[in-house]
Amino acid sequence: MALPKKKLQGLVAATLTPMTETGEINFPIISQYVDYLVNEQGVKNVFVNGSTGEGLSLSVAERRQLAEEWVTKGKDKLDHVIIHVGALSLKESQSLAQHAAEIGADGIAVIAPFFFKSMNKDGLIAFLKEVATAAPKVPFYYYHIPALTGIKIRAEELLDGIQDQIPTFQGLKFSDVDLLDFGQCVDQNSHRQFALLFGVDEQLLSGLAMGATGAIGSTYNYLGKKTNQMLEAFERQDLPLALNYQFYIQRFMNYVIKLGLGVAQTKAIMTLVSGIQMGPPRLPLQRASEEFTLGAEAKLKSLESHCFP
Amino acid sequence: MALPKKKLQGLVAATLTPMTETGEINFPIISQYVDYLVNEQGVKNVFVNGSTGEGLSLSVAERRQLAEEWVTKGKDKLDHVIIHVGALSLKESQSLAQHAAEIGADGIAVIAPFFFKSMNKDGLIAFLKEVATAAPKVPFYYYHIPALTGIKIRAEELLDGIQDQIPTFQGLKFSDVDLLDFGQCVDQNSHRQFALLFGVDEQLLSGLAMGATGAIGSTYNYLGKKTNQMLEAFERQDLPLALNYQFYIQRFMNYVIKLGLGVAQTKAIMTLVSGIQMGPPRLPLQRASEEFTLGAEAKLKSLESHCFP
Amino acid sequence: MALPKKKLQGLVAATLTPMTETGEINFPIISQYVDYLVNEQGVKNVFVNGSTGEGLSLSVAERRQLAEEWVTKGKDKLDHVIIHVGALSLKESQSLAQHAAEIGADGIAVIAPFFFKSMNKDGLIAFLKEVATAAPKVPFYYYHIPALTGIKIRAEELLDGIQDQIPTFQGLKFSDVDLLDFGQCVDQNSHRQFALLFGVDEQLLSGLAMGATGAIGSTYNYLGKKTNQMLEAFERQDLPLALNYQFYIQRFMNYVIKLGLGVAQTKAIMTLVSGIQMGPPRLPLQRASEEFTLGAEAKLKSLESHCFP
Amino acid sequence: MALPKKKLQGLVAATLTPMTETGEINFPIISQYVDYLVNEQGVKNVFVNGSTGEGLSLSVAERRQLAEEWVTKGKDKLDHVIIHVGALSLKESQSLAQHAAEIGADGIAVIAPFFFKSMNKDGLIAFLKEVATAAPKVPFYYYHIPALTGIKIRAEELLDGIQDQIPTFQGLKFSDVDLLDFGQCVDQNSHRQFALLFGVDEQLLSGLAMGATGAIGSTYNYLGKKTNQMLEAFERQDLPLALNYQFYIQRFMNYVIKLGLGVAQTKAIMTLVSGIQMGPPRLPLQRASEEFTLGAEAKLKSLESHCFP
Repeated sequence: MALPKKKLQGLVAATLTPMTETGEINFPIISQYVDYLVNEQGVKNVFVNGSTGEGLSLSVAERRQLAEEWVTKGKDKLDHVIIHVGALSLKESQSLAQHAAEIGADGIAVIAPFFFKSMNKDGLIAFLKEVATAAPKVPFYYYHIPALTGIKIRAEELLDGIQDQIPTFQGLKFSDVDLLDFGQCVDQNSHRQFALLFGVDEQLLSGLAMGATGAIGSTYNYLGKKTNQMLEAFERQDLPLALNYQFYIQRFMNYVIKLGLGVAQTKAIMTLVSGIQMGPPRLPLQRASEEFTLGAEAKLKSLESHCFP
Repeated sequence: MALPKKKLQGLVAATLTPMTETGEINFPIISQYVDYLVNEQGVKNVFVNGSTGEGLSLSVAERRQLAEEWVTKGKDKLDHVIIHVGALSLKESQSLAQHAAEIGADGIAVIAPFFFKSMNKDGLIAFLKEVATAAPKVPFYYYHIPALTGIKIRAEELLDGIQDQIPTFQGLKFSDVDLLDFGQCVDQNSHRQFALLFGVDEQLLSGLAMGATGAIGSTYNYLGKKTNQMLEAFERQDLPLALNYQFYIQRFMNYVIKLGLGVAQTKAIMTLVSGIQMGPPRLPLQRASEEFTLGAEAKLKSLESHCFP
Repeated sequence: MALPKKKLQGLVAATLTPMTETGEINFPIISQYVDYLVNEQGVKNVFVNGSTGEGLSLSVAERRQLAEEWVTKGKDKLDHVIIHVGALSLKESQSLAQHAAEIGADGIAVIAPFFFKSMNKDGLIAFLKEVATAAPKVPFYYYHIPALTGIKIRAEELLDGIQDQIPTFQGLKFSDVDLLDFGQCVDQNSHRQFALLFGVDEQLLSGLAMGATGAIGSTYNYLGKKTNQMLEAFERQDLPLALNYQFYIQRFMNYVIKLGLGVAQTKAIMTLVSGIQMGPPRLPLQRASEEFTLGAEAKLKSLESHCFP
Repeated sequence: MALPKKKLQGLVAATLTPMTETGEINFPIISQYVDYLVNEQGVKNVFVNGSTGEGLSLSVAERRQLAEEWVTKGKDKLDHVIIHVGALSLKESQSLAQHAAEIGADGIAVIAPFFFKSMNKDGLIAFLKEVATAAPKVPFYYYHIPALTGIKIRAEELLDGIQDQIPTFQGLKFSDVDLLDFGQCVDQNSHRQFALLFGVDEQLLSGLAMGATGAIGSTYNYLGKKTNQMLEAFERQDLPLALNYQFYIQRFMNYVIKLGLGVAQTKAIMTLVSGIQMGPPRLPLQRASEEFTLGAEAKLKSLESHCFP
């Protein structure tokens, strides 16, 4: 059966890929990373080899090995290990999906191919279906991120009837600010059969108001705890407190976005907050500047002391 | 003093400009339009000569006359009549601002000039300030709509210190989906001194969750009543009911947006719902197709019968 | 008859609007400007109140007065004075067209309305036709500049059958780099009945190779002479020499484009080269920095001494 | 040494990847394809595994095998076989570069990574250099195609000093319409040490006028002969005849671009013209419609009979 072992809920961290100073994947550190997410951030779901994880900058062999590491080290600690298996080459995506099935991943996710772009739903669904079919017992998630892919096909249109084509479909990583589109996904999902994970961390509260069943993003690596507090306030219908937490998060995000926030910078922040060395990114990304890191550190300290004394 | 006579709250309808079949402004109908908004839609604030009102397609003389008509006919019926006085020519914008002051408008609003575009905050503030100065006792609102203007200057940056430059500044029409930017406007506005009006009707609930003090848009011409019900549910912290209303609105908007929604189509919908003849748009806009109008009508009927029986 | 008094050929300068330090139009200087173009730059055609001329930043009254000044002062000196009468408001555009006819302009030009945008050829043609009809004896030019207007309707499609709709149609200001589109305009114009004026100065040679009948742009204010030398070399089929001139122009343009080139900067360059005070631009544009002006001056000097000793 | 065995000149065909009906690469047909290009189209240079060749939709293993096939079958027939080795993963790109060296390719080319995007020249050069270093004796070409990659770094800036970083640098595939940028590349290349290959087939004449040393594109698969005639006319400085050939090509391209031209459609056209079965494209691309193929066929026939009787 393709149903997830348990309902995917709460936060999903889009994991970074720790690297050594020479740019090789630092596999041994994954175990520590798992513990940190669970124990320090209260995050029990991960999304591996996605854009935050530089999945598309890794070789296929590296992607397999890293997926395996997360599944192995997350066993009995993490609730869901979802492996991103999207690639420009369908063959490679299928091979990664099959591998994810073999290692016992809890789900696979696929980004829309973004070099050649599907102009219509049929083409995109055909591609996704071919990948899903390679792992016929693994829950399938679509990774919707139009600003990065340039694919304008709306998520709510894609969802319409998707289980007829992809029986393993289980949900969305919705990384976009079009909340009409997201709302109409939620509206379709009245039995809450799908996980509709909102993926714009700095405005998660707006996604929750629109009916998100969970959240996925890179900031949950280091702001998971604070975001969990926001989720709890929202659950209790204490909107003013939830908004207070959201503003805390926004102040930090707004600051680092202005400095220039990308995966390299997220690695620097995570190293700072967790003490786990995330190392440099792969080219074409370049290491965060020291100026960025010092700025982010000062901002975090100042927020910590002023907002929630 | 530049303070508004009373706090601007709730819904603001961006008014359409009714036209005769020959394309002249149908001034006599404004009186009926005012009564309809107040009595049928529960809307007591209007935004005149904005993009919905084809303000930039009118001549300066027409804009003055129409502003005067709304102020006159809205007297003792409407709470706030805000006149959009933005123009590509600063001189014309100033002359419209001065006129708005003379007729006793409750506020003026200005869109960022969008042919030549300010690349930095200083240039934009300098332009806005010159307009505001022409009406030194009239509350001033900035009309933020980056998707139409191409101006990327974030609203939260513009707000920072704006009253030092523009003492009459009273608020924002925030017509964008960047809720980090909007949230950081709200975060700055902790004494709620400004009206932060969310302007993306089809996802208003997300703006309310982020702290909007009100809402402004074209749909409140014909969906004001339904939206007021959503506002009330939100005020009572009944989020599930508020979301239910939001979905009703989204189903309709989603449908008409796919058919192609613009000012011409909004005129057709408003004529349909209110019975007041809005007439054709001005060129370069073209009349809505009959197919659109029939589709919109059928959708409204079907929603009415299925959603809230 | 709507035919131009004589064929429009060679260079057309998109004129700047000289302003006093207080931002008012410096009308008395136009006479000197005319003489400079004719005597120093060898340019005998002008395009007034276009984007270079800040036409859309002027009031309608100013546009009329400035048009009149150019027509009057250009009499017996200039071959063609074309007045740009485009505006967001059709009524204002028509009134400007009518005025251009009254003062004896040699042509009118219209940019596609760019706030509300025509999505199809019919809507755009309908707008243009309404303007052209207001000046039924004046040659009509369409100002095609998709990067500024956002209008994607291709020029070659617009041209197809345009004289059936707009009998006064006489040509194009083609300010775009799509030379397939431009080539297919030329291909249609086999009797060379229309003026197909290429409007991307820094790559004019590519437009000439594709069959342009002339050129229009802001650099001909100060690089007209050099460009005329390129035109002559091209006429003689001396492509290597023409390319040499093109590279001279490109080196300068490339340099100032990197510094940030807009109308304010073009005013600074023109003041520098001609000695005629062009003054500041209108808001929202801001005066060129001193750094820009010094850089442009040094570059001109260095080019002059190195390229054509 | 990294110098090409002989100067790369004239046309380079960006090859399609022939596939069987089941979507596997049809390797045996490559031999026939080589002969067709040489004998029927007069094209003796190929660019393999580029965007036209669906290189990024193939697995790494397939890319190697196909590169080898072209090198082997092109031996003694083709002048230059350039292998595109660009990939999102630097490791995979390096491995492909090394393989290209091993099989004796005449050059390698690399597209800028386009998922994570280099924001500055340093990052992009660093990536390219790492690939070039993996094949230190093979001529290196940069594949510049900003509309597909979203990389705004101008080619002329990249070229400036590039041989200090990448000693094997030999040229550009310039697939863009910014002829200021292209012209400034040519201007730098005064000793004609680099191959500056213009890559927008439908406006090649404009690139030639700006100093292109050759041309590269997908249409040379089936319009190589006609384009060679244009090149010859241009060489003889017979611009009117060259323009005549350009218009022939444009009429066809303009027609098929309006129908929707992509790799799938190029495969259909090539099958039509050459009789060699190119087969379907890989997902996410979808097979060309029959309507497209019939339209393209009719257009070719009509052009053949009317233009050059």
